[in-house]
Amino acid sequence: MKNILVVNAGSSSIKFQIIQMPQEKVLTNASIEKIGEIDSIFKMKTPELNIKNIFPVKSHEDALNYFLQQLIENKVLNDLSEINVCGHRIAHGGEYFRDSVIIDSDVSDKIEKLCQLAPLHNKVNLSCYQILNVLLKDIIHVAVFDTSFHQDISKEIYTYAIPYKYYEKYNIRKYGFHGTSHKYVSLITSEILGAKNSEKIIVCHLGNGASISAIKNGVCINTSMGLSPLGGIIMGTRSGNLDPSIIEFIMNNDDKSIEDVLSILNKESGLLGISSKSNDMRELLNSTDKQSVLAINMYCRKVSDYIGAYFMHLGGLDAIVFTAGVGENSAYIREKIISNIKEATNTIIDNDLNENGSKDRIISSKESNVKVLVISTNEEVMIAKDSYRLSLI
Amino acid sequence: MKNILVVNAGSSSIKFQIIQMPQEKVLTNASIEKIGEIDSIFKMKTPELNIKNIFPVKSHEDALNYFLQQLIENKVLNDLSEINVCGHRIAHGGEYFRDSVIIDSDVSDKIEKLCQLAPLHNKVNLSCYQILNVLLKDIIHVAVFDTSFHQDISKEIYTYAIPYKYYEKYNIRKYGFHGTSHKYVSLITSEILGAKNSEKIIVCHLGNGASISAIKNGVCINTSMGLSPLGGIIMGTRSGNLDPSIIEFIMNNDDKSIEDVLSILNKESGLLGISSKSNDMRELLNSTDKQSVLAINMYCRKVSDYIGAYFMHLGGLDAIVFTAGVGENSAYIREKIISNIKEATNTIIDNDLNENGSKDRIISSKESNVKVLVISTNEEVMIAKDSYRLSLI
Repeated sequence: MKNILVVNAGSSSIKFQIIQMPQEKVLTNASIEKIGEIDSIFKMKTPELNIKNIFPVKSHEDALNYFLQQLIENKVLNDLSEINVCGHRIAHGGEYFRDSVIIDSDVSDKIEKLCQLAPLHNKVNLSCYQILNVLLKDIIHVAVFDTSFHQDISKEIYTYAIPYKYYEKYNIRKYGFHGTSHKYVSLITSEILGAKNSEKIIVCHLGNGASISAIKNGVCINTSMGLSPLGGIIMGTRSGNLDPSIIEFIMNNDDKSIEDVLSILNKESGLLGISSKSNDMRELLNSTDKQSVLAINMYCRKVSDYIGAYFMHLGGLDAIVFTAGVGENSAYIREKIISNIKEATNTIIDNDLNENGSKDRIISSKESNVKVLVISTNEEVMIAKDSYRLSLI
Repeated sequence: MKNILVVNAGSSSIKFQIIQMPQEKVLTNASIEKIGEIDSIFKMKTPELNIKNIFPVKSHEDALNYFLQQLIENKVLNDLSEINVCGHRIAHGGEYFRDSVIIDSDVSDKIEKLCQLAPLHNKVNLSCYQILNVLLKDIIHVAVFDTSFHQDISKEIYTYAIPYKYYEKYNIRKYGFHGTSHKYVSLITSEILGAKNSEKIIVCHLGNGASISAIKNGVCINTSMGLSPLGGIIMGTRSGNLDPSIIEFIMNNDDKSIEDVLSILNKESGLLGISSKSNDMRELLNSTDKQSVLAINMYCRKVSDYIGAYFMHLGGLDAIVFTAGVGENSAYIREKIISNIKEATNTIIDNDLNENGSKDRIISSKESNVKVLVISTNEEVMIAKDSYRLSLI
């Protein structure tokens, strides 16, 4: 039995879990948000307690120190030496990492190099590792990359139709993200349906960020995100792929820099941009104005476009799986997406199974040609699984 | 019976035909290329003669004058008054034009306004109209827009997931192009298969520029090109849609302006960019190097991605139609694209029908779930048909 500390660091937040493996028992689930502001929020949950403190946390280093101190103070652990392994979510593994890996100086150098491709995230991920490597001496640290599940994708799929020198010079290619989630969900699908009935699956990870993957016999063969998490389908605030002329058009007509436009495409587009109202699907689903309805319809259509493309690529389809915030919680969106493919594929939702129930489950009817499932993603458990596996080698 | 002069003007070339309607008899087929250079090329074919002259043609105006003079000199017509109607291919009809239209001052103002959306093409198209309107007095001039067949596409499809104000302010939306070709080919498909067997069709216009349309009961419901002809699938030298981050990445790392990058994406990308060799499919098909093979595979995969998306959108599929240079002439590319969708849809090519024959024809086998056709596009005849139809009103 080992206690795995799972660390998932963003630019202004860190999420933590302590998970006892192999039994997958969560000892605590904690987070610090709004790091660097005066009203940072610390939350910690255990089976016994539920803490929320608001106070200034200056830096990621302070956040990590505070979390470790709270672990002891709240008796989640008696001593930090009870942490056996630390698993880090690392945004970008580039072409170096096809699997999770124990971090050594070579790995850490490579993560550093990849900051060019993911400047914000890899830098923060790496610095959290460096800090914890000092604070938690003599334990194994494991890097679990958001990209590595997609590293099996073929050259035909990951290459862009731009001058090839840009791949050679700058490694511009499709990487894909949310890999830990896609992998976890595909494993659970295989457990629920059996390997024979889940040879060809499409996972729709629909959160505020959103991506779709085609998975054949457990191997990812295609995914919607690209060089960056801006690529692919419509998201909460992101545009997804575009006709590149749009960027020049906005720059020239609105007198904006490329940084301005990329910021608009990342932060003011997607559901928020179309609706001019919200990036939150729940809010749009409670609205009846034309723009909100348009945003929802466009979102569902884009998902079914990718399902169509991946249906061809997989050579048929055993199952479609919905996961993440919107995918897990909105029966309406699931129904609407499936209604877009119903006529072509005879995929049929069972309304009762779709609308009721909170567990991982099949929501298609018995007559459906394709199984449809809802599965709660759990990137932290996936990170703990990989960290545990590597700690045993 | 009427003689229609069909004019298709590009930035440095003009193509002409004189077509006798309604019998669709081509009296001559002519072109002037490399306008503005010292070695401009004039070609004119009739059933009796085949002329090629190389000499400097300074401007589009000189080109038009020279062509009209050659018409008489070579006795295609006895007098210019034998031209009854002039049909102009106009690149961009924006949201103004859902159909072809007789040009009056209001129409010409609108074409002028749309120069913002298609700066190069609409300007040239308009100036050819203005010149011919003086040279050929008192005849009807008809504008046939490359966009109007796509104007039935729903708001859900033509809207981009960017701030909605950009649609309101600058009309940034999907327009689609090659409409005249998609319309012509869908009409011929319906003639060949009958309306009942061609309710749901996908037209793959695969030339140096390339686009795909989904057509339901004769109405276009989706198309791959977007705000500009750069959008959609991989083309000879164009990238198609991209993760927008790529543009920022190239600008920042290669110290390029947005104009530089758009020029790269329009002129140095696509098949040429991937292969580093050629934008000409024939040349790539005769090559065995890895990059040429990669370019071909990527091209065919992107086409089958769109077929998948449109298969869902149409709610099934009666027929897939190949047209334009690559689509009409490469049996290998047709076979490869269909092989990408064979397993999922049971679409089967008959190799003999695919490889032999030059006429418009069905090339799928009898067992195929989806009919596959090759049809020679003829934008000039479509322009003549619309011009003739409007001249009768």
